[in-house]
Amino acid sequence: MTDAGIKTRRRGGGRAGAANRRGTATIEQMPWRIPVNTDRPTEPLNEEGVAAIHDGAMRILEDIGIEFLNEEALELFKEAGCTVNGTNVRMGRDWVMEMLGHAPAQFDITPRNPDRKITIGGNHILFGNVSSPPNYFDLEIGKKVSGSREQCANLLRLTQYFNCIHFAGGYPVEPVDVHASVRHLDVVYDKMTLTDKVAHAYSLGKERVEDVMEMVKIAGGLSEEEFSAEPHMYTNINSTSPLKHDIPMIDGCLRCVRRGQAVIVTPFTLAGAMAPVTMAGAVTLSIAEALSAIALFQYVRPGSPCVIGTFTSNVDMKSGAPAFGTPEYMRATQITGQMARFYGLPMRASGVCAANVPDGQAMWETSNSLWSAVQSGTNVVYHAAGWLEGGLIASPEKFIMDCEVIQMIQRYMEPSVIDTSPDAIAVDAIEEVGPNGHFFGIQHTQDRYEEAFYQPFVSDWRNFEAWEAAGSVWTAERAHRIFKEIISNFEAPPMDEDIREELEAFVARRKEEGGAPTDF
Amino acid sequence: MTDAGIKTRRRGGGRAGAANRRGTATIEQMPWRIPVNTDRPTEPLNEEGVAAIHDGAMRILEDIGIEFLNEEALELFKEAGCTVNGTNVRMGRDWVMEMLGHAPAQFDITPRNPDRKITIGGNHILFGNVSSPPNYFDLEIGKKVSGSREQCANLLRLTQYFNCIHFAGGYPVEPVDVHASVRHLDVVYDKMTLTDKVAHAYSLGKERVEDVMEMVKIAGGLSEEEFSAEPHMYTNINSTSPLKHDIPMIDGCLRCVRRGQAVIVTPFTLAGAMAPVTMAGAVTLSIAEALSAIALFQYVRPGSPCVIGTFTSNVDMKSGAPAFGTPEYMRATQITGQMARFYGLPMRASGVCAANVPDGQAMWETSNSLWSAVQSGTNVVYHAAGWLEGGLIASPEKFIMDCEVIQMIQRYMEPSVIDTSPDAIAVDAIEEVGPNGHFFGIQHTQDRYEEAFYQPFVSDWRNFEAWEAAGSVWTAERAHRIFKEIISNFEAPPMDEDIREELEAFVARRKEEGGAPTDF
Repeated sequence: MTDAGIKTRRRGGGRAGAANRRGTATIEQMPWRIPVNTDRPTEPLNEEGVAAIHDGAMRILEDIGIEFLNEEALELFKEAGCTVNGTNVRMGRDWVMEMLGHAPAQFDITPRNPDRKITIGGNHILFGNVSSPPNYFDLEIGKKVSGSREQCANLLRLTQYFNCIHFAGGYPVEPVDVHASVRHLDVVYDKMTLTDKVAHAYSLGKERVEDVMEMVKIAGGLSEEEFSAEPHMYTNINSTSPLKHDIPMIDGCLRCVRRGQAVIVTPFTLAGAMAPVTMAGAVTLSIAEALSAIALFQYVRPGSPCVIGTFTSNVDMKSGAPAFGTPEYMRATQITGQMARFYGLPMRASGVCAANVPDGQAMWETSNSLWSAVQSGTNVVYHAAGWLEGGLIASPEKFIMDCEVIQMIQRYMEPSVIDTSPDAIAVDAIEEVGPNGHFFGIQHTQDRYEEAFYQPFVSDWRNFEAWEAAGSVWTAERAHRIFKEIISNFEAPPMDEDIREELEAFVARRKEEGGAPTDF
Repeated sequence: MTDAGIKTRRRGGGRAGAANRRGTATIEQMPWRIPVNTDRPTEPLNEEGVAAIHDGAMRILEDIGIEFLNEEALELFKEAGCTVNGTNVRMGRDWVMEMLGHAPAQFDITPRNPDRKITIGGNHILFGNVSSPPNYFDLEIGKKVSGSREQCANLLRLTQYFNCIHFAGGYPVEPVDVHASVRHLDVVYDKMTLTDKVAHAYSLGKERVEDVMEMVKIAGGLSEEEFSAEPHMYTNINSTSPLKHDIPMIDGCLRCVRRGQAVIVTPFTLAGAMAPVTMAGAVTLSIAEALSAIALFQYVRPGSPCVIGTFTSNVDMKSGAPAFGTPEYMRATQITGQMARFYGLPMRASGVCAANVPDGQAMWETSNSLWSAVQSGTNVVYHAAGWLEGGLIASPEKFIMDCEVIQMIQRYMEPSVIDTSPDAIAVDAIEEVGPNGHFFGIQHTQDRYEEAFYQPFVSDWRNFEAWEAAGSVWTAERAHRIFKEIISNFEAPPMDEDIREELEAFVARRKEEGGAPTDF
């Protein structure tokens, strides 16, 4: 690619504030900010449609019930007056709505670097890295391979590097070369040292989630009191659709909730497989499953920061394979947005695709999913950068390419783009230029051109001849070169050596203790 | 690619109706329909913003004036009471708004096959092929080459083949191997015989536009009275921004308007080049230029079918190169949609990108532009399939890939996707399946699965291993293979031999007469 879109810039000094750091050698990227989505959401349903889905979800909760395998949850539901038969829990809509009434519509999460605080809810929209693929693909390797700690660390470096990525999700690739009993210790150590953004804990057994909370405390230099006083991390759980919540996920959420941390509840309702073939049915099931858990958490600690997630898509009815970024996915996301606003809950969606490589299909599917996140009023966009093959592959090239799309969305939301002040309407400039001139050189342009338009870093806007002379490099290959450059020049965010050593010691001690059980 | 997404199907007989023809060997594509866009448009401006742009446009028309180089137009403006100084025409806002009041909000265009009638305006959204690139690129040639008649014909075959392409725009690639004096005759002959969809005439001299009207009449078997009674074709013109309309484009429109045909007026206002660097300024200039011509056409023939076009984007401020599918482009399109509704005019936008090859960048830029067409309430989407390099290259692979995106948009607009009837909410099916089953086999799924979800033809939804076993074919290459298959199996729509001969004779006669002057 030669240097298309890349600008190497070395910074000797500069401001120390991590929020302003861009690393030593960088592309030109947009600054860190919490984008505000001012678009009126796209709402496919009228009031009756919203009422129909709400009523369906409530009928599921009242008449069919949700299975909770977690004993503690069952006891809590009993205590709350719900109808518990074995593992089946039925709950009245009045109680559910009363519990949801406690949930905040907006809250903050503060990571170890307070400049990276994020606000979840309202009109804010946040983007996170791909989470949890077991496999990795890049153009150098050229094939799908099991994830490694080094690949995981590189994707964490990208997560840190890009200002448009607001939080660190789950493992950006599963490091299969680290034993599952201690994997969380190594990856969270990497996450704490390579990033200073909001971090996530898997709810896969009490040790994992408690260890992450301890490490977040250590990294932030927080007492237990300070930690529990407000959210500093979060967990994300999936239900076992249809109609079921398993033991460790609810356990992890209860641990987070009791210590004031945030939870995201995201059913995975694939229409035609573990959910009805109709999109409204799949959304209704998803809503019921999510609300049943959120109601529990609000009962345990009213006012707990909870997010309702959507992961409703459809299968390919020819093969049964999951499909993502489809028209049905977009509508389900928009409808879930309507429901989230109906319940007054912040919402999570995703940036997803079924494509196996970072090509055209990958980008139209991902664009569909990211724009549906915008259209739906989504607050938290999971998997927004780096996802391939329905979440089975993480790709650094795709990460880079997705960040271009995310930056464009961020730019799209800047009020300056739609400014209609007299200076922006620019009748005087039009008069000055007249019918035979051009606008390049005039003062009105000179005063504004540096900030006037989005500047891409991987898109190549040169004409064909210049692009050809530079090697005819297609987008994925350009992204690969940018990935290598970012990694080779990456500088971790600052961390006090005392804290780093404390983290290291914690990891060593917990490894000696055997880490976490792997029989979940 | 082997056969991913391709299904060869030979039809011995089948229904003769052209609206139901899919050719002999086909992919499985969606049926012909006129999509209805029920989404509430995304409207970045409030009432004051709309008023500010309107006022700016009116001040341009009243105080600065638009240059009309066409003598006939100048006479008409004088007759209408506008202030004409040399080529500068100033017009009062009351007169402009009075003229716009005559313009229909919706109208039909009927091509030679009445089943391919299109409705422009209201909530309808239509897609057309790429128009007017001088160059061609495909994966077999592997480089940018000047367009040829055969390439142009192949792109017309794709235009006809895809049901999601509703009309045939300008030359899908400029056939530079045909002399400019007779090029329109050969290409329109190809267009009339290879397609039965609504066709376009370039307004590049009276001969070209009159010849197309004659050929549309012949192809449709229409008398002059029948032809002039309602729109059967259209022309699209650009202003010469800033602030100017040239001679032949206005001439061509006047010829169309007087014979009852449709016109689209599309200023090309690149912010920072021939328009203000501010997006509101570039839109304001575009609106003023478009309205000045539409007002003239309404004066000449009140009620003439007119469409306001937008082609407002921005340049790369580093290189001056035009950029497309940018955040600024999206907002300009949405804002123009607000203005089109304010004036009660149907609107045209485009499917565009700056990318040089059909890769990831091409698809995120094109997705941005196509979705902004949806968000803006656009009625006519020009260049929706096949466009590369800012319109300098036509690509059949890109055409195929774009049609996948367009089909997804069409599917997205189907009411069934958002059905919330009790059967769609599916509480009974959820109860039937319970917490331990799956939905694949149940009756609720069986009754619906064939039509439940969008079925792609170029997207590959197989997992990585199956995709790899089939040759690891990336999207552009899959599209290339589909292109070849469609062309090799293409069957032209039926045409009476008498009519074909009459067209042929017309072309021969006009060639003998020398075609059209090339000194425009």
